[in-house]
Amino acid sequence: MHAVCVSFQMASCGEGENLDTVAFMKLALEQAKIAFDSLEVPVGCVIVLDGKVISSGRNRTNETRNATRHAEMEAIDILLDQWKKLKLSKAEVSKMFSNCYLYVTCEPCVMCASALSFLGIKEVYYGCANDKFGGCGSILSLHTTSCEEVGGKSYKCTGGIMAEEAVALFRNFYELGNPNAPKPHRQPVQQP
Amino acid sequence: MHAVCVSFQMASCGEGENLDTVAFMKLALEQAKIAFDSLEVPVGCVIVLDGKVISSGRNRTNETRNATRHAEMEAIDILLDQWKKLKLSKAEVSKMFSNCYLYVTCEPCVMCASALSFLGIKEVYYGCANDKFGGCGSILSLHTTSCEEVGGKSYKCTGGIMAEEAVALFRNFYELGNPNAPKPHRQPVQQP
Repeated sequence: MHAVCVSFQMASCGEGENLDTVAFMKLALEQAKIAFDSLEVPVGCVIVLDGKVISSGRNRTNETRNATRHAEMEAIDILLDQWKKLKLSKAEVSKMFSNCYLYVTCEPCVMCASALSFLGIKEVYYGCANDKFGGCGSILSLHTTSCEEVGGKSYKCTGGIMAEEAVALFRNFYELGNPNAPKPHRQPVQQP
Repeated sequence: MHAVCVSFQMASCGEGENLDTVAFMKLALEQAKIAFDSLEVPVGCVIVLDGKVISSGRNRTNETRNATRHAEMEAIDILLDQWKKLKLSKAEVSKMFSNCYLYVTCEPCVMCASALSFLGIKEVYYGCANDKFGGCGSILSLHTTSCEEVGGKSYKCTGGIMAEEAVALFRNFYELGNPNAPKPHRQPVQQP
């Protein structure tokens, strides 16, 4: 995993980084740290509407015994449940999503990147690149027009926001999970 | 959408088609028909363990107001809920999935194909190819080793099982949904 600054349709990472962007990514990193403390692969995210966090999620694949429960899917489902309770129509849900921003500590994987396109998210900011399975530029570019033929929407995507912090969490996680590490405080983790 | 017979790691479609395979695909088609009658994009699936259907699902993106609720995701979540109630461990869930077969009327999309790899399904049979966004051979081959670096498993995948029936359902669906069709019985459908 490398901490690279990859900007697709916006250039907001680096020294001129928007303060709000950093603030929201810090909240996503807090979610990732909660995942870390729960012995989960440390990825976290928040979803923002009108400048406010309206949902957050962290990777819970171990806790849920469901390997698809990535941080983004968790945050999405929490949000959809809220909107379901408000009895929003499908059109209203789409409209809401089209104004949402998602901040996630690691580039969305292929599964999550296509889900975000289906849902019609407005914009995604991520921390470190997902060189193995990233769906927003690293392996595939599902945030561009890739999903449009099947009802998805393209979305702006900017990487490299506080990437070093995200990578540090991964590094600590895998070091602690290494069965050969001296005096391990926890069991090795199978899933990357 | 074309009804092609694509076999990746097994050749079981065509005249020598296995009777069980056809029987399970018929059940998946029944699910697709229920989706059709509910004005949903008509895709259905069943999950089979030890020769018995243990879960089924149909596309419910409109009903749930959630564009990610494809037939496979529905069937998967029903199954995981059952296993959660049985308090299966993560290892036990993985073991169960590794013996499951999924039959779906249309090739899994990129999102669903990667989810099935994360979960470690044993084998997938599908009806017609998904030429626009298929993740099991048409656009990507996520059933092969693509997901392994991120904890996924490869799985056997065979297409072309009762593909004509699946395509006929799609054709009827889009014809009925066509705003220019004479005397439409229902409203046009936005999502493919």
